[in-house]
Amino acid sequence: MNLPKKITIHEVGPREGMQFEKGPISTEAKIQLVDMLSECNFPEIEVTSFVSPKWVPQMADAEQVATGFTRKVGTQYTCIYLNTQGAARAIATGRFDLEGWIGTAASQIFSKKNSNRTIEENFVEAERRIVMFKEHNIPLRTVNVIAAFGCNFEGAVDPDKVVLYVDRLMNMANESGASIEYIQLADTMGWANPRSIRDLVGKVQKRWPSQRINLHLHDTRGLGLANVLAAMEMGVDDFDSAVAGLGGCPYGGFKGAAGNIVTEDLVHMCEELGIETGVDLDRLTEVAREAERIVGHPLPGKVMNGGRLEGYRARAQAA
Amino acid sequence: MNLPKKITIHEVGPREGMQFEKGPISTEAKIQLVDMLSECNFPEIEVTSFVSPKWVPQMADAEQVATGFTRKVGTQYTCIYLNTQGAARAIATGRFDLEGWIGTAASQIFSKKNSNRTIEENFVEAERRIVMFKEHNIPLRTVNVIAAFGCNFEGAVDPDKVVLYVDRLMNMANESGASIEYIQLADTMGWANPRSIRDLVGKVQKRWPSQRINLHLHDTRGLGLANVLAAMEMGVDDFDSAVAGLGGCPYGGFKGAAGNIVTEDLVHMCEELGIETGVDLDRLTEVAREAERIVGHPLPGKVMNGGRLEGYRARAQAA
Repeated sequence: MNLPKKITIHEVGPREGMQFEKGPISTEAKIQLVDMLSECNFPEIEVTSFVSPKWVPQMADAEQVATGFTRKVGTQYTCIYLNTQGAARAIATGRFDLEGWIGTAASQIFSKKNSNRTIEENFVEAERRIVMFKEHNIPLRTVNVIAAFGCNFEGAVDPDKVVLYVDRLMNMANESGASIEYIQLADTMGWANPRSIRDLVGKVQKRWPSQRINLHLHDTRGLGLANVLAAMEMGVDDFDSAVAGLGGCPYGGFKGAAGNIVTEDLVHMCEELGIETGVDLDRLTEVAREAERIVGHPLPGKVMNGGRLEGYRARAQAA
Repeated sequence: MNLPKKITIHEVGPREGMQFEKGPISTEAKIQLVDMLSECNFPEIEVTSFVSPKWVPQMADAEQVATGFTRKVGTQYTCIYLNTQGAARAIATGRFDLEGWIGTAASQIFSKKNSNRTIEENFVEAERRIVMFKEHNIPLRTVNVIAAFGCNFEGAVDPDKVVLYVDRLMNMANESGASIEYIQLADTMGWANPRSIRDLVGKVQKRWPSQRINLHLHDTRGLGLANVLAAMEMGVDDFDSAVAGLGGCPYGGFKGAAGNIVTEDLVHMCEELGIETGVDLDRLTEVAREAERIVGHPLPGKVMNGGRLEGYRARAQAA
């Protein structure tokens, strides 16, 4: 097997999870979760979302969370925003290591539902954002396409269409003088499979051979880690994931965009395959159990219940 | 990707699940589950276990379940037994399409815990069983090694040791005049990863190039479908799995042997990859939800909550 020696994991649980949960989560608990995750040595933690409190009331305390958590040296703290107003709120807190991103959904219907913009309007928004990034000295580092593998409303997504969107975004970024670090492809509604991963990743790699690809995968139908494996075999070494699988609870009867891949299960798979992540898995497993207590219902993470194999190996050797 | 055109799935949920569950499950519910699974077109359903009611009280009603379910033409109904007494009980019901198997655990400690026999005593038991199969005209078809990838008590298992055990079992079977159909390798405690799958499967294929391999995988640490994918890429086309992931509930705080791979998630992955299974996925998804109601707690299956992609595709096209 041809696998990367190390991968980078971006922990998105606090943002994805708290946005998704229906029940009330206290601001204190949100801050506690970020602080615990800070002990696990992630290179990046996505802390919160600056979105409209009218549409996402769970995120109305984004400013309090932003000012409440304790920053740890070595970790980059980031957040999500869907428009320039949101970005302005994030900047105003002065608490984030902001990097800019521009992007679009590959599905028209999902784009409207997610950001109330058409695909074409996403490119207009991208222009606005590029101006704002310059004003605030925020480096534009990422172009992304969400719903890049399929859409619950529109069905399959043509990978060539995704490449065209990436191309437009890359051109805009390049014209603005930005140095893009990542092309992010998000399987927002859990449509990817190992074959479609190879297909789309292959096309993007062919078009931009030296560009790093980040995959943001959801485990809606159980294919998450199989998809990671397929991607790693193609050299992809950068993934988003959520502690305990926060962001999706398969027991709520929801349909649609839910269920990030589980960070500790991803770290554990890498450990078993000899791939370095830098993440403290024992501490992370404790955090996963605490995340379950915070949300008050079972989360889909497996290793937090099944146990880390390194632990079993050590006990077996000691016995 | 080089994948099989079709695979065979053996549904083991009724046996694995009912054996594992701590709460009382009525005999009627067990029968209902088997009957519902019979509507899904499985080539085989493992119905129950004839084991000591002293050690496994959940299986004390094996005879009632055996006589209670309705046989459907085209499905093979099987059961598990750990010794010749158990086999005799299964035979006495006259309700099963019995095929014989002989096997061992690859771990000494687990062998004692699982069957109260040492590894060497498993070979003695195999001799007894071969005699009994002949008496009852039961064809010996399978040799198996459980805990073939690792053991919570002994740690990693050397694949060459597994090959040696398979070799001894194959020799015994051949000397008895049996025609072995399957070499079954069971990852009883969820230790396998895609690399160790390739390693052990590769060694077994090299030694017995024309022998079919069955994999019995557990998803204890979330690697189940990634392991299936790795195996299918090596040509393995025969898998055990459990509806809804019966047999392991990641929310009971248990440790150890738990969590079969989820049948409907496996079928769905195959559907997305263009691999035929013959299983009725829509009906199976309903059965998975019913299995959750029967056991009274969430089960780990994903597709039963996330929804089959073919359904989304059809609705998107109709819209």
